[in-house]
Amino acid sequence: MSICVKKYGGTSVGSIERIEAVAERIINESTPGVAPVVVVSAMAGETNRLVGLSDSVFKGYRGAAYDMVIATGEQVSTGLLSMALEKRGRKSRPYLAHQLGILTTSTSSKARIQKINTDAILRDISEGIIPVIAGFQGVDEKNNITTLGRGGSDTSAVAVAVALKTKECEIYTDVTGVFTADPRLVKKARKIKRLCFEEMMEMASLGSKVLHIRSVEIAAKFKTNIHVRSTFEFSDGTWIVDEGEIMELENPVVTSVTHESLTTVFKLNALPKGPKVLAQVFNELAKESIVVDVISQHEEQSSQRLAFSVPVDDVTKTNEVLRKIFPNIPAEIMEDISKLSIVGVGMRNHPGVAAKFFDILGKIGVPLHLVTTSEIKVSAIIDKKHLEEAANAVHTAFGLDAREQA
Amino acid sequence: MSICVKKYGGTSVGSIERIEAVAERIINESTPGVAPVVVVSAMAGETNRLVGLSDSVFKGYRGAAYDMVIATGEQVSTGLLSMALEKRGRKSRPYLAHQLGILTTSTSSKARIQKINTDAILRDISEGIIPVIAGFQGVDEKNNITTLGRGGSDTSAVAVAVALKTKECEIYTDVTGVFTADPRLVKKARKIKRLCFEEMMEMASLGSKVLHIRSVEIAAKFKTNIHVRSTFEFSDGTWIVDEGEIMELENPVVTSVTHESLTTVFKLNALPKGPKVLAQVFNELAKESIVVDVISQHEEQSSQRLAFSVPVDDVTKTNEVLRKIFPNIPAEIMEDISKLSIVGVGMRNHPGVAAKFFDILGKIGVPLHLVTTSEIKVSAIIDKKHLEEAANAVHTAFGLDAREQA
Repeated sequence: MSICVKKYGGTSVGSIERIEAVAERIINESTPGVAPVVVVSAMAGETNRLVGLSDSVFKGYRGAAYDMVIATGEQVSTGLLSMALEKRGRKSRPYLAHQLGILTTSTSSKARIQKINTDAILRDISEGIIPVIAGFQGVDEKNNITTLGRGGSDTSAVAVAVALKTKECEIYTDVTGVFTADPRLVKKARKIKRLCFEEMMEMASLGSKVLHIRSVEIAAKFKTNIHVRSTFEFSDGTWIVDEGEIMELENPVVTSVTHESLTTVFKLNALPKGPKVLAQVFNELAKESIVVDVISQHEEQSSQRLAFSVPVDDVTKTNEVLRKIFPNIPAEIMEDISKLSIVGVGMRNHPGVAAKFFDILGKIGVPLHLVTTSEIKVSAIIDKKHLEEAANAVHTAFGLDAREQA
Repeated sequence: MSICVKKYGGTSVGSIERIEAVAERIINESTPGVAPVVVVSAMAGETNRLVGLSDSVFKGYRGAAYDMVIATGEQVSTGLLSMALEKRGRKSRPYLAHQLGILTTSTSSKARIQKINTDAILRDISEGIIPVIAGFQGVDEKNNITTLGRGGSDTSAVAVAVALKTKECEIYTDVTGVFTADPRLVKKARKIKRLCFEEMMEMASLGSKVLHIRSVEIAAKFKTNIHVRSTFEFSDGTWIVDEGEIMELENPVVTSVTHESLTTVFKLNALPKGPKVLAQVFNELAKESIVVDVISQHEEQSSQRLAFSVPVDDVTKTNEVLRKIFPNIPAEIMEDISKLSIVGVGMRNHPGVAAKFFDILGKIGVPLHLVTTSEIKVSAIIDKKHLEEAANAVHTAFGLDAREQA
């Protein structure tokens, strides 16, 4: 008996009709010898509603009570999907994280899965029962309910697949796969057939919202392939696999153009010199759970310049932290900023990719505020007003447009 | 350190503003040496919404998935109230049933509490933490989430109070106490200061919706006083206490006039004789979970007549059951029927109460369809159109009107 883990996202279970359709599909597609194990997100909009309730009581509060509230979204969809399977005559059992033993760290709203007990799932499978598991949630050692962060149900699904030692994990979503760029921004974006884990990780960390980054990290570590596909269509989606599985020829230099449309840049122009100062800044920001993205630093004669970007939600907190450390050095805050990136493992063997990227942006007159690179990506911080034009130009220049490659 | 268990109902936590107000009141009213332990219902309307979602997937389904879904209402309000306390600088910890070990039977949607582990609550109290406990829910031996039935949070609260060995349990609701009759039906109804457990049990089973009947049963068994009072006012409400605590003089013959405005009566006029037939009828109805209320039976020459009332929701099912057993004996279904009752432990020592009750109804020309009595109550099944007039007449005749007793 092999096992297929199927994860359904928020829009896939966004209404009673869709929950019924998912149940129908799980049953119709079930083949003898392959046992489905289902992981679900909250019904679309539900987590936002719950976060809104929490925020209206105590904005920014993180703790057991917060996770307890926002974990209810998955609890409801899990129960409803399990019922929808039972209604169709299939035995099903719903599981919350604590019932299954999805053990996580204790960090409220950003917990990480540490262990999953598969005994119950395996027993269900042997009895012909379809387990339906609430994604996004876990339980810590003190038996508090934890949550894994927005998009965390992907991670739940991949972690369950890894724990069950399956070779792949299906992620059902409202798009047909992973695209070379966001089709809302780049009209000629096309679906990618195969991607390697590293590329997907970069894309996720650079703003692609298709998959929760942690899910890709876990999949990469345990070489569990992910199949991202549509709940509403039957065609193959995008496979995310180990780099070794992708033929060299198949692999373009740049796989995708990724963006984050809204971020904020802080600039400090006359900091005292030395690495200690930088360590202090980023330590204090980390204490407040502020995730700093792009960092740029320049040493000058008697001081250093520092610039970094943070999510828009963290601007107020970041400002408070900086004022505490440097009461006399005002920070310049640049708003309405976007990040545009190109990703591709092929870059490793093709020098000059970054140069070409800057060249394209230069030709259309887009000024760069910050730049950061890694072995397989180049990112530029630009003004939001240039984002659409820049993304399309880069997409075309790197040969990603649908017409050319279809 | 003494402990005060405070339960807040759905309307008490029906909005963010009300949750904030409840947190405020818990803190303002806390006195040194008295530790509050809080139990909450779901926000008003939430359980209905969740039952609606379940019904739209699989109407009438009962099982672990159902309880999992409808238990989320209390999970949300518990988290929110705990946050509201934390916002005000008080340490608080939220608890779901499984986290506390509120062990129940396994009956989906109608589970009964068997045991509560108070270790965590006592530890919190010793550390100055206010525990906030989700009402209505439990966990069975297999770690499934269970629920206690509509109004079950009252039972959670009383069970927690009993487990903590407190002398009383405060039930905060949207009315100022228990009334001599429903004030919407009987304008001169007045608040009762003290009632004994038995009277409250009768009232709850006769249609009064102020308290979950099981909560009163537990309170009676362990002699834990219940104080029913308003969340929105500060005056004393109604105390429900052991009969021995109520002075004879204080005790009127009839304590309250209770009604159930809509029920249905089935009449079967020529059933075969003998108790076996009756046993069969009520066994088959019980199998369908139909709760039969008033039963009346008359033996005749060669047959027996049977009449009984069932909730309006169960009419279709009841009819099916009867047709299956007696395909040739048509049942007469009387709709738009109400039940009017008087309750009072004083009846035990005052003969003629039933006679007086029938006399009043007779004088105003209200025909009786069925009658049932116990040591401390008399109930009559009458047409709904007579209910208001009859309730008011009975209320006045037994000296319960506000003006007379105020």
